[in-house]
This record gives sequence, structure tokens and C-alpha cells, in this order.
Amino acid sequence: MVTSPDSACRETYQGDEALAGLLKKHQAHLNINALTELLPGIAAAPAGEKADAWIDLVAHNPSPALIAQLQAFRREKESREATTRAQPIAARLTLLREALKRQGLDGFIIGRADEHQGEYVPKNAERLAYVSGFTGSAGMAVVLGDKAAIFVDGRYTIQVKDQVDPALYIYRHLVTEPADAYIAAEAKPGQKIGFDPKLFTPDQAGRFRAAAKRAGADLVAVAKNPVDEIWAGRPADPISPVLPHDIKFAGEASGEKRRRLAERLKADGRKAAVISGPDSLCWLLNIRGADVPRTPFALGFAVLHDDARVDLYMDRRKLTPSALAHLGNEVAVMPPDAFGDGLAALGSSKASIAIDGATASEWVYDTLAKSGARVSVGECVCALPKAAKNETEVQGSRNAHTRDGASIARYLAWLSVRAPKGGLKEIEASDQLASYRHGNEYFRNLSFDSISAAGPNGAICHYHAMPETQREIPVNSLYLIDSGGQYLDGTTDITRTVAVGTPTQEMKECFTRVLKGHIALGTARFPRGTTGSALDALARKPLWDVGLDYDHGTGHGVGSYLSVHEGPQRISKVPNRVALEPGMIISNEPGYYKEGEFGIRIENLVVVRDVKDHPGWLEFETLTLAPIDLNAIEKKLLTAEEIAWLNAYHARVRAALAPQLSGSDLAWLNEATRAI
Amino acid sequence: MVTSPDSACRETYQGDEALAGLLKKHQAHLNINALTELLPGIAAAPAGEKADAWIDLVAHNPSPALIAQLQAFRREKESREATTRAQPIAARLTLLREALKRQGLDGFIIGRADEHQGEYVPKNAERLAYVSGFTGSAGMAVVLGDKAAIFVDGRYTIQVKDQVDPALYIYRHLVTEPADAYIAAEAKPGQKIGFDPKLFTPDQAGRFRAAAKRAGADLVAVAKNPVDEIWAGRPADPISPVLPHDIKFAGEASGEKRRRLAERLKADGRKAAVISGPDSLCWLLNIRGADVPRTPFALGFAVLHDDARVDLYMDRRKLTPSALAHLGNEVAVMPPDAFGDGLAALGSSKASIAIDGATASEWVYDTLAKSGARVSVGECVCALPKAAKNETEVQGSRNAHTRDGASIARYLAWLSVRAPKGGLKEIEASDQLASYRHGNEYFRNLSFDSISAAGPNGAICHYHAMPETQREIPVNSLYLIDSGGQYLDGTTDITRTVAVGTPTQEMKECFTRVLKGHIALGTARFPRGTTGSALDALARKPLWDVGLDYDHGTGHGVGSYLSVHEGPQRISKVPNRVALEPGMIISNEPGYYKEGEFGIRIENLVVVRDVKDHPGWLEFETLTLAPIDLNAIEKKLLTAEEIAWLNAYHARVRAALAPQLSGSDLAWLNEATRAI
Repeated sequence: MVTSPDSACRETYQGDEALAGLLKKHQAHLNINALTELLPGIAAAPAGEKADAWIDLVAHNPSPALIAQLQAFRREKESREATTRAQPIAARLTLLREALKRQGLDGFIIGRADEHQGEYVPKNAERLAYVSGFTGSAGMAVVLGDKAAIFVDGRYTIQVKDQVDPALYIYRHLVTEPADAYIAAEAKPGQKIGFDPKLFTPDQAGRFRAAAKRAGADLVAVAKNPVDEIWAGRPADPISPVLPHDIKFAGEASGEKRRRLAERLKADGRKAAVISGPDSLCWLLNIRGADVPRTPFALGFAVLHDDARVDLYMDRRKLTPSALAHLGNEVAVMPPDAFGDGLAALGSSKASIAIDGATASEWVYDTLAKSGARVSVGECVCALPKAAKNETEVQGSRNAHTRDGASIARYLAWLSVRAPKGGLKEIEASDQLASYRHGNEYFRNLSFDSISAAGPNGAICHYHAMPETQREIPVNSLYLIDSGGQYLDGTTDITRTVAVGTPTQEMKECFTRVLKGHIALGTARFPRGTTGSALDALARKPLWDVGLDYDHGTGHGVGSYLSVHEGPQRISKVPNRVALEPGMIISNEPGYYKEGEFGIRIENLVVVRDVKDHPGWLEFETLTLAPIDLNAIEKKLLTAEEIAWLNAYHARVRAALAPQLSGSDLAWLNEATRAI
Repeated sequence: MVTSPDSACRETYQGDEALAGLLKKHQAHLNINALTELLPGIAAAPAGEKADAWIDLVAHNPSPALIAQLQAFRREKESREATTRAQPIAARLTLLREALKRQGLDGFIIGRADEHQGEYVPKNAERLAYVSGFTGSAGMAVVLGDKAAIFVDGRYTIQVKDQVDPALYIYRHLVTEPADAYIAAEAKPGQKIGFDPKLFTPDQAGRFRAAAKRAGADLVAVAKNPVDEIWAGRPADPISPVLPHDIKFAGEASGEKRRRLAERLKADGRKAAVISGPDSLCWLLNIRGADVPRTPFALGFAVLHDDARVDLYMDRRKLTPSALAHLGNEVAVMPPDAFGDGLAALGSSKASIAIDGATASEWVYDTLAKSGARVSVGECVCALPKAAKNETEVQGSRNAHTRDGASIARYLAWLSVRAPKGGLKEIEASDQLASYRHGNEYFRNLSFDSISAAGPNGAICHYHAMPETQREIPVNSLYLIDSGGQYLDGTTDITRTVAVGTPTQEMKECFTRVLKGHIALGTARFPRGTTGSALDALARKPLWDVGLDYDHGTGHGVGSYLSVHEGPQRISKVPNRVALEPGMIISNEPGYYKEGEFGIRIENLVVVRDVKDHPGWLEFETLTLAPIDLNAIEKKLLTAEEIAWLNAYHARVRAALAPQLSGSDLAWLNEATRAI
């Protein structure tokens, strides 16, 4: 993760009286006591690109003197907090088991997700890491009285061994040996296995319940999470400023979105919908925040009523006066604590309430159902409207990709000189790419932690280079770089695989087959109603023909200055009933991985468009603009049509990027995009 | 439907005394009273290929004299029955509404399926036809006090207008304007809408219930079907002899199958499985019957226990002594009426019972659940084992296809001379094909009513030629023939589209694109775990490339001397989670249809096989052996690989069929399979 440097000069804190004076003078929103209360939340939010963004929450247009004193105040407070000493995991586990006993529990299930089932979660939701040491992005643990297990998927089988003590946890596969099977096998009749109903979906809870029942045990929803109880110095809920997302990027006012969806609710006979996914919340209200890493989420819950009003359950301190003005008088801001009462009041109307099966928790379901609601579990009402971008968002994405492509080109030009010399480390390489992106207009953050994978590391699909274990990029190998940016006008995600030195014939043949699949999918025309699952095989066929394949999906949806992984559309072997619709942005990323040797992935983002003059038919427009390495191609495996596509794409890349480049970068671009 | 002629000489009936004497002399299984009771059931079974097959149920090795007297006895009885005059539909509807009133109902839902949710149903299950006049293979009706609606799909929009009086029923689309929407809109608060719980799945019943609830009405499961009550001369349950399916065709003894599945039940923690699908029943017990047209079903229900015992609920009169001996002492034959008590007894064990969501009725579910069973609704336990044919069945299918292909070749040779002369009618053509199949070894029946479609009729996917409305095959057109046979060693299903005279350039281009899709799918190699949905696009891509498509699935499973449409695997746009497995037989049948002009479909059956020396990879072996019309191909649209495939396929067809042909047929084959 790459962040901007803190301001160079660090003033000394002048004391509370001086700061109070400055705050008063600037008509700050907060006094010094409110400021003191706010700080733990600010500390709990990720640093982000603009380290001083939090100051907006304190005062509008602060003077340099006030900024300096606020920074000093924060440093002062945080240095005092930092004295809490970290406990060893074994001690935490002992404390947890004691806390379970106090609650009358014989076991507890700990997941990785927060209350929104997010991929990126705030610091205080990292319970799995706190009780186990495991920091991967997916996993689960079950702690019983005398034993415990941790569940991770194929991406993390090595990492879990590095991070988790096998004397404390046995290792299990998250998918093939899941937590419910463990509970069914290990729980004893009459035992009570606890879980936090705010952290699991009704679906997950149902599986745990069935598993406990098979063992003759009971699943118990806890009112207070025992991990939080024993977590010394647990971070606060994150506080980051909520920013209006400008209509020039969003393309549709929140009021219009809300009215559009309210009509839909009415037509479906629903009184309201609970919005539990942060991406839906941010999209619906045209707001963005910085509560979690990499993704511009403002965390909160909302209820959208069938008259287009919204109850927004969010810490009011995140909302500057301008954010409040933006939300307007159809959005009622309520304290997060009032959410349960709000759901119960909704339920007491006995009406039909829609909730999102993917992000709403068992607690949301239960609170509604117990108060009398007819709960309808389905896809979030925002999901499809959000996925199908409007013309403003599509044009924004084109613009963002044009700038992003220039950074990629600069990087690849630099790499073409630096890498063949040898000794280039993976993190040095991805830092270099990040530095090119930083200067771009509207750039706010990387959209995810870059995958910079040298040689054999390329075969590890979700490789994450660590300073201690990173590789140097070997000469005569393939190097894979998967990265993206969060721009105000669009989110990017691109993978390029580059030949460093001379690749082997096998590497070139595999690269070319991956490219053939990429082209076959990218050029597909298909009728409305076609799902991503139906298209997946087009990208695999050239590999299948020689008995090769790749073990991941071919395409994921991408948000508009939102999540880099967004549903509900998907291009994958896994059946999916969501038809592709115009405006949907999705990745096209076939690959091939030879364990211990090399990895290949070619990823462009594409947007679904109507075929001109052929109603009812759809095609893809490629958004990503960056050269595909000609040195890795075995031309004789390409058909004339495929060569024509490649040359046309490269001509387009050259036309879009050349005006942004000069000197050796431009010379490199011209060479890299030559017709073959 | 084509059947063998009745025996030519018709003896006069000599009277009951004479017949009684003959029966006694031959130690017949039945006396004359039992025989009289049996006749309505025999009359209710379709005539089938062997018109005298029913005589096996009366006596073993009957003398010609006994056969003649039994035939005469049956004619005598049936001619008396035939005097019942058919009532007009309007009168039936009036009677039905009176019957509903007597049961306290305000409406009633009538489906097309029988108690097994079958595609082919016995005569006495044709309730929809009885109350509406509509004879299509799918449909539904809802009869309310003062109005009624009939629901049919796109195949039957013309037929329904011919057969159903719009003064009695309004027409609705079965899928887009379904019965539940009609109920929700038309039922009045407080009304009671009836349905027969033995004729709908729990899933369907749930939809009706929700629809009734939306209208403030109630859905009521009737104990006695009011249509049956008012159906004058309703046929009996069909009685056809149950024949053991020889191990030389089945490849695995019933006892082995039962033990294999019982192990599976135990592993899944189930006490028993209800077998409600006739194809599953016939497969599991290695029996075949003739209770419905075209498909060799012996209708009945069974319960498979976790110790491999089976309770078979079936009319014992269908079982000859040899069939009983074949079933053995692990299969208890119980009267059909005892099925409800059997389910209740099963339920009282409070155990987990598996039922088939696709064929088990709401009544089966309800009877089990009310008596205390934990009902697990899923795929039939037989479905996957039945779908993945064993080596004997695969070899049987190869053999059946070799014989079937020779009939197709003879037919196409005949057609190549006859059709260009003009005036050839569709039914005359399909009768000619049937006559070639009739002589084949192990041939028992057609596997479905042939689709013989001239010119524009080819664009109607499920066209069924009727004597009054059939077309002559025009010259300079495409003719489509979709047909198949039921052989003891395998079921066939093949479509060929033939150029009669000179096809247009458009016809040739479309035909060639359909062929390219057929080849792309047929030559696919794919990893284990791949579903049919994932492969579907391969067959469509060459059409999609020019903005064309077809509105049906690409492949359906096929049974082994069983249903010509068999799940659970399928090649289709519709998502399907069933991975293809070695031994599965499935059709490869892309098409293209230009309304009002022509239709194209090229259908071969293929079997999924392991790729030799490449563990974990699968491919298709083509089973169907018949020429693909070279006169309809635009060669320049084919790649070199596609031409090579076509030439290799034709060489294989020639090698397999030539030994069975001679003279002009052989000359035609050699020409039709020449390399291009």
C-alpha cells in the first residue's frame, strides 16, 4: 500500500488552551472535547492518500497554523495510545475461552467479514487476525473448549502456516473441509456453539445451525461478541469524512436513483429495502468515504422506503456540513445504535421488507422477522442498477483508463530497460508503477494491493509480495503485474504479463493461447439475456484444446469509483443467472499458471454495449489501454482475424496514449504497439 | 405414430365357455373374470409395436387358437365400450364447475402431467385435453366460477386456437403469463382454489399457494380429483406387461444398483429414497414396460431402503411370473393403493427421507412430512448413476446407432430420388423412414413422434405434421427430419436437414454456421467439473458472430432404452450445475430458424469419454452415424480443421454403414460421404 508522505515539518503541540483558541477562531465544527472523542475513530480509518483529510471533519478552510496544531494534537494522543503492549495469541485464546465460559458457551465461530460482509474491512473487524494471527482476506476459525481450527482457502495454505501456531489451531480447507463440517464432527451433544449474528448471513447461520444440530449441539447467537470483550485496545469504528460524489462523475442524482428504486419496490409489493452493502449505500446516496483500505466506502446501513426517503444509520460526525447539505432532507441521518430499533419499527408494520442475501446479517433478518416483517431475501435492490453504468460513468471510465494506460505505458517502458539488467525486486517494481499513477488527475488510491510477481511467483494467483520474502525478477522469464487505481471518474484493474529477456517456447505458446482466449471473449457478440457463465468457455477454448485451463473466473464486475470486485454479473464456470446488460463493466482476464515456473494473465476491463443497428444484440468495448507484450507472442498460433484485432487494439492504444508520453517513453510505445 | 398391423385374420368370438376351456387347458394365469377386469387397463395402454404383447399377461406360450379367441374377446368387449358418446367441452366444463361447488371450491387448476410429472402420460392422465380439447404436450388450465384460462407455451400458440374455444377459455402464455399470476389477479378474497396434490410438485404447489395468498384466497388440496369425477368413460390405469431388461443390455444387475445407491443413502444419513420418476424406477429395477407412448415405462412408485430392499407399488397384474422372478425377493410388490400408507409408515420412523424435487408430488411430500419424516428434496438418487452409462450401455448405444444409421442412410437415399420430383408429403416421408427402422434388430418403437418438416415448417421447432394440414416438400428448399428409435440396446435421436433441389446462398451459409457450431461442440475437450451450460456458447459462436442464434437448448441427455429426454445434464444457456461425466449420452443439436422460410438443425448424439492419457480431461465421442448433407455446405466458410473433421466423420459413417447397404443405397452413401 502506497501512501503520500506526511507533511515534512512537525510542529510541537502547544497545549489544549492554544488549540481551543485556534478552533474557536476558525469557527470549527468541534470543540476540543469532541475532537478528543473523534480521534480513535480517525485513527481506526486507513491512512489513505490524503493524510490530512480528517481535518475537514473539524473545521472548514483551516489555517496552516490550525492544521499544524491539529496534526500535533493527533500525534500527541496517538503516541500515548501506542503504549498498550500486544498480547501473544495463546494468551488471547485463553482469555477468549474464559469469556466463552462466562457466556455459557462451549465454542465460538470467528469469521473474517464485518457487518457488511465486506472484502476490505475496518481495523476493528479484524477479529480473526486478533485471535489467530492470520491476516489473509478470507478465512474462519472455530474455537472449542480444548481445540480450535482455522479455515483458509488455497490462496493461503502457505501463509497460514507462517502466521498461525499449529499448537493452537489445526489447519483446515475453507471450502472442502468447512467450519460446519468441523462443528458437526467435533461439537458434543448438549454443547452451545456461539456466533455473532451481526457478522454472518442467514444462509451461513443456517449452515452452522444444521451442523450443530447434527452433533446434537445448539447454535447460539451472542448479544455481545466475546472477541471484542477480550480485545485489549480494540480500534474504534472508523471515522473518515464522507464526501459527496459529484454528479459529473455519478451521472444521476441520488434523488433520481432513490425514486427509481422506490418505484421498483412498490411494483414488487415491498414497503422498504434494507441497504446493508456499503457499495450500494455509497452508490445510492452518491457519497464516498475512506473507512476501509483501497475502496472508497463510507460504512453505514440504510433503509430505503417505498416513497424514496432514506434512513441513514451512520455516525453523524463523519458528515461535514457540505455532506449533510448534499444528502438533503429526504435522507434522515440516525445514530448507528438506532438501527435495531429502526428495523423493529419497520417490522411492526407487518409489511414485506427486502434484504440483500449477500450482505445482510442474520441479526438484520432476525430483528425484522421477530418484529413481524415478511422478510424477502434476494439480491440488493441497488445491485443491478449500480452494475449497469450510465453514460457519464462509462465515459468517466474511458477517461480514467486513458490516464491509467499512460502510467502503465511509462511503467512498462521503464521496466523494459530496468528488468533485463537483473536484480529488480517485486516491491520496487510495483512501487515504481504506483508512483506513475500518483500524479494522475482524479487519482485517489490504488484499487487493490498490486500483485507484482516474478517468475514462479506468477503462478500463485493471489500472490502478495512481502518485503522479507520478495523475489528478484529473473532474466528470461515472465513477470506478471496486476494492479489498478481508484479515480474519481472510474476504477481500473489491469494485468499485463511481460517477457523479461527471452521467454521459452512453452511460455510463448501458453501466452498466445491465453491471448487467443482473451480476444475470443473480447470480440464476442451475443444476444440479450446471455449470462457471463455462458461466455466463459470462449476464453478457455484455446487452452482446453491442448488440455490446459486456469482455476479462476474469467471476469468480475468493477464499480465506478467503488469496489474493484462488484456483482452481480460474472464471467465464470460457476453458474450465474445474471444476464449481461449494457453499461456493465467487467474484466476479461484468462490466464495460465504452471506451478513453480511461470504465470500468465492478460486482463482488460470491458464494458457491455449495444451492437449498433442490431437491436437485442450486445458486444464488449475494451476500456483498458495498454500494450500487450509482442515479445511473448508466438505469431503462427494466431489467426488472421486475431492478428487484425491485436493490431487494431494496439493502434487504438497508441493513439490514446501517445499524446501523454514523450521521449523514450513515446519511442517505447511506438515500438510496443507496432503492427505485426 | 407407426404400429404394426393387427393380425390379418379375425376370428369370431366363440363365447365365454369356449374361452374358459381354452384358458384352463393352457394353465393360464387368469380366469375369464380376472381377464374381464384386466381389459380396461390393457385398452388404456398404448398399442405399441407388438399389438399382442398383452397376451403374455394371460398365459405363457398360448396356442394360436387361444390367441385368436383372446383377440376376439378383447374386440367384443371394446366394441361395447365404444358406444359412450363424447360430450362437448362446454358440457364438461359445466359439469366440472358443479363438481367444484360440491367440493366447496371456487376454482381448480388442471395441469398436463401425471403423478410422475412425465412428458408422455397414460390416457387417463390427459385431463387437460378432456376439459379443454387441447392435446399439446405441455400446458395448464385454471377454471374459475365464471371464467377460465388455458396456458400454453410458444410451441402451441397456433394449436391452442384450433383446439380450444375462446368462449370457454382465454389464452395465456405458460411462461410469461403463468397460472399463478392469473390466480393472483383473478381469485377473490376468501375463495378456495383447488388443485390435485398428486399431480403437482411441492415447488409448483408453493407458487400456487403464494399466488392465492396474494389474492386473499386459499389453495386447497383436493382428496378426489373433480375432473376424474365428471370424466365419462375415463380410461383405466394402463396395464402393459413388465419385461425384465436383460443384463446384456443393462450391464449392471438391479441388486448391484440397489446396493450401490443404498450405500449412498447411508452415507448421506438417509433412511430411504422415494423413487417417483418412471425412468428411475425402470433403470433401478432393470425393467421396461409400455404404459405410455414412445417410452418403455412401466409406471409405478418405489421406495428404496438403505439396506437395498425395494417396496414396489405397482399393479401386480402387470407382472408375469418371469418378471416376478426377475425382481427377486429383495423387491416387495405392493398394491398401488398402499403407497400412502407406505409413506406414512416411513415417516413415522422420523428419519430423513430423500425425494426427487422434479417428479415427487406435493402429496408425497405432505404425506411424509405429516407423518414425521425429515423430507429432503433434491435430485433423484438414481439420476446421476442412470445418466452416466456403463460400458455395456455405451457399447449398446454404438450398436443401436450403427443399425439406426443404416435406416437413415436408406431413407436419405430414397429421399434424394423421390423429393426432387415434387409432391412428397411430410407424413409420407416420415412413414417411409419408420418403415426402414422397423426391420432393425432390437427395434421396439420410435423414441418420439418424428418431426418431418418441409420448407417453412422447419422453422417451427416442435412441428408435428397432421394429415389435414401437412405440406408437400417444395423443390429448392431445406427439409428437416428429426426422429429416433427405441432399441433394446439403446435409444437414438437424430436430426438431418437436407437440401432438396438447389438451396439459396443464405440457406447454405446458415447451414454451414450451424455445422461449425456442431463441430466446435463435438470436438471440445474440457476438464472434469465442466457443465453443459459452460459449453453451450461453443455451439452458438459461429451464429452469434453474424448476429444469429436459436431459441432452444443445444443438448439434452438421452436414456438407454428409456426416455429420449433425460436429465440431469444438459447443454443449454440455462444455468445447470451438473458436471458432465464419462458415459453420459447427450445430444449436440444447434440449429437456426428463419420464420416463414426455413429451419436447420444438425443433431448427433455424443457420449462423454475420458481423454486417453490425459487424466481429468473429457471429450465427446459421436454416436450417431449418418451423412451430413454436403449439398447444403458453403465450403469456404469452413476452416481446414472443420473440413478435416467432416471428412473423418464421413469416412467413419461410410465404414460403419456400407456393410449394411447395397445397390443404389450404397452408391448414394459413397457419394454422400465423399471427402470434400
